[in-house]
Amino acid sequence: MAQAEIGLIGLGVMGSNLALNIAEKGNTIAVFNRTVERTREFYEEAGDLKDRIIPCETIEDFVAAIKPPRPIIIMIKAGDAVDQQMEILKPHLEAHDIMIDAGNANFRDTMRRFDTLKDSGLTFIGMGVSGGEEGARHGPSIMVGGLEESWKRVEKVLTSIAARYEGDPCVAWLGENGAGHFVKTIHNGIEYADMQMIAEIYGILRDGLKMTATEIAEVFATWNKGRLNSFLIEISEIVLRAGDQLGSGPLVDVILDKAGQKGTGKWSVIEAQNMGVPATGIEAAVAARSLSSMKAEREAAEKILGLPDVPPLSVGDKTAFLADLENALLAAKIGAYAQGFAVMAAASREFGWNLPMPTIARIWRAGCIIRSQFLDEITKAFTESPDAANLIVTPAFAAMVKDTDAPLRRVVSTAVLGGLPVPALASALGYFDSYRRARGTANMIQAQRDYFGAHGYDRTDGKDSHHGPWGSGLVAERS
Amino acid sequence: MAQAEIGLIGLGVMGSNLALNIAEKGNTIAVFNRTVERTREFYEEAGDLKDRIIPCETIEDFVAAIKPPRPIIIMIKAGDAVDQQMEILKPHLEAHDIMIDAGNANFRDTMRRFDTLKDSGLTFIGMGVSGGEEGARHGPSIMVGGLEESWKRVEKVLTSIAARYEGDPCVAWLGENGAGHFVKTIHNGIEYADMQMIAEIYGILRDGLKMTATEIAEVFATWNKGRLNSFLIEISEIVLRAGDQLGSGPLVDVILDKAGQKGTGKWSVIEAQNMGVPATGIEAAVAARSLSSMKAEREAAEKILGLPDVPPLSVGDKTAFLADLENALLAAKIGAYAQGFAVMAAASREFGWNLPMPTIARIWRAGCIIRSQFLDEITKAFTESPDAANLIVTPAFAAMVKDTDAPLRRVVSTAVLGGLPVPALASALGYFDSYRRARGTANMIQAQRDYFGAHGYDRTDGKDSHHGPWGSGLVAERS
Repeated sequence: MAQAEIGLIGLGVMGSNLALNIAEKGNTIAVFNRTVERTREFYEEAGDLKDRIIPCETIEDFVAAIKPPRPIIIMIKAGDAVDQQMEILKPHLEAHDIMIDAGNANFRDTMRRFDTLKDSGLTFIGMGVSGGEEGARHGPSIMVGGLEESWKRVEKVLTSIAARYEGDPCVAWLGENGAGHFVKTIHNGIEYADMQMIAEIYGILRDGLKMTATEIAEVFATWNKGRLNSFLIEISEIVLRAGDQLGSGPLVDVILDKAGQKGTGKWSVIEAQNMGVPATGIEAAVAARSLSSMKAEREAAEKILGLPDVPPLSVGDKTAFLADLENALLAAKIGAYAQGFAVMAAASREFGWNLPMPTIARIWRAGCIIRSQFLDEITKAFTESPDAANLIVTPAFAAMVKDTDAPLRRVVSTAVLGGLPVPALASALGYFDSYRRARGTANMIQAQRDYFGAHGYDRTDGKDSHHGPWGSGLVAERS
Repeated sequence: MAQAEIGLIGLGVMGSNLALNIAEKGNTIAVFNRTVERTREFYEEAGDLKDRIIPCETIEDFVAAIKPPRPIIIMIKAGDAVDQQMEILKPHLEAHDIMIDAGNANFRDTMRRFDTLKDSGLTFIGMGVSGGEEGARHGPSIMVGGLEESWKRVEKVLTSIAARYEGDPCVAWLGENGAGHFVKTIHNGIEYADMQMIAEIYGILRDGLKMTATEIAEVFATWNKGRLNSFLIEISEIVLRAGDQLGSGPLVDVILDKAGQKGTGKWSVIEAQNMGVPATGIEAAVAARSLSSMKAEREAAEKILGLPDVPPLSVGDKTAFLADLENALLAAKIGAYAQGFAVMAAASREFGWNLPMPTIARIWRAGCIIRSQFLDEITKAFTESPDAANLIVTPAFAAMVKDTDAPLRRVVSTAVLGGLPVPALASALGYFDSYRRARGTANMIQAQRDYFGAHGYDRTDGKDSHHGPWGSGLVAERS
């Protein structure tokens, strides 16, 4: 067999699927796993694809099997194990070989690793891969960060395995060092927000309108044919329709309401905080997951406080209210995505990445968890308005905000009066209402800060006077 | 003159005021400043207090002037300067001498500094001081973190200078290493939330009810006599009444609506995220400040999107609505404080501090920016229920939540329909509505996560089956 185009270390579920995907698309791949048994098992199960797989039992054989400069995908558990794997690999590699971390790394680790290899002649790619197991096997969305020369070496293979949206491959080089993993983190942050907003709408349907899981599935099925068309809405229908293997009712009704999280939502919030960019939709979603995990506390609290003492949900015409819910969810999505892109724009300035916003939206249209036609609309908006300060001031999205603003307002108000928590939906409305208001209320905060801390303020007329006459007895003549 | 009880380095506004406060309360203090001129100027202006002040022009003289073991307050700009000052001091000190950082340090720096001194025989105190310039001069709230033996050495002096609430001094030792600075950080985070909630209410009065600054001042004056009685409500009246030195109208109307921030709000959010504790009130407040600082973007956005197209605010009876606003603000405060205390409880477990919740509430009752009778109620609640999982399930606060829940709901709904941003008020409601609900909607999220990532879930019946039959064709028999 000829030398492999690429190598892959780590034959867990994600690594195996990625390796099979690579082979299936016509590339020869060398694979290695910490335990030889797994390598053999993987190879045995590869069927027709064996022809393009070189199973290796030692690092030496593995490295020798790859055509230089050698791109080597490391697909193992994020964290210290990656550093250890890099140390093991390093002495076997030559100048221009490329280590590719395809795990869910924190981009700050990626930046550190990139720098660590800088003087060795080796290069490093931090690669975000989204789409879960299915995506890895049949076409993920791939976000690449590293030197452009490293990207050039892997472009062909990665393009061959990426998901496609109307033929357009969902992979791109986004910038140096941590760019790829940063964008993947924000992708996941947006995913948290999107899922939380869907869960809030589900809550209104279940607890407010007293609909069954199957009835709710039908609502999502209808919405998936409209502007909300997306993977997450599609699977909302599927999971709501699924039956319980151990009973006769809907499975979703016996799933415990404790949601896990693995860190990327939290990282998104922390980095948004570090850059001073509002990301309230992601914050609301992370908080909601944390609250969900406090199940025992919530059970105790309901015993003490009771559910809110409110009248039954007052929704008027049900068909109209369902249309409101659909538009409210669309509006809230716009808010969360606008925030996510604003965080990436700030990070791009902070880290000098020059992140291409239309390209990011473009490669999220297929393969990844938040894939949707909505992202095609974002792609177009950022392509037409590359310098827009925010997604919601691009012409198309400004129009969508204006169209969906009233329904979002009605839905949040209805839920609030009905005692149903809608923190993520409400966060989007608060974001719009703050962002589109030239004159806010922070003058009050600045007055207080100057009063107690002499922090100073600016004036609306630009005059050079920055402290109040607090306590001098000077009061307003006009009221 | 006898040797000084304590020393202080850094005669800026805060340091000078703290030194004068210490001298005034009968303690002898040695002072030192990087520039000799400032030390001389400070001493000249000290008047009657000169008798108890030892101005020192060299580090050697300064150290010699203090009675061992020497407590030395460092009151300089937070950051690297503190480390540099510690390095300068170190060779001049002896075992058991105590360096006290009284600046607004990040508690993680404090923990590092505490550890740095560990093997030297010197000890370190990280001391949060709240109350601004006035507090430093006449009685701040003081949050001490360090070894108990270090605290014992400074207890008398600090107790003499602290604010008093009904005679009770607002100072306490809260735990080792970073405990004091951590609690100060959360104090500031709560302060952010409290101020943002006041600003939102101010916005409803100004933009919704079209009231003048003076009219709004009168509302706050009335509220300050009720359950909202607090420093921040008191100064809300004062700043709203103040006249413009350069004009004839209310000063607050010409103050630019761009609020600054110095980092403690952000740190609060980041640490809450690190511990997985919801702190949505602080998050909303930090986001609101960030949005306020994006003035040019907001001006541009208003031109493109316009203000929300909504009817004039519909509030019904104005007196009843004002009562609703008062109760809504109280409810929202409860949410923000409950979150802040929950973050501290988690940090206490994480860092092994054993933070005393009733004591923290007690020393915040006077001296600091969030001082209020409300904190006396919190003190009592945590004293009576030391093991409460959350402030809002203590009997007194559970009753308050039940009493103020409906007004908060009405106010948020009214503001939402009126296009007025109330992200912090809404965050409190979302928190209550999520926290008091035993059965939330995260089952939907877990179903989706299992579908696309095989993350698994638990079942409400505890049965050992953790993955869905997605795609198997099994659908619910009952709907």
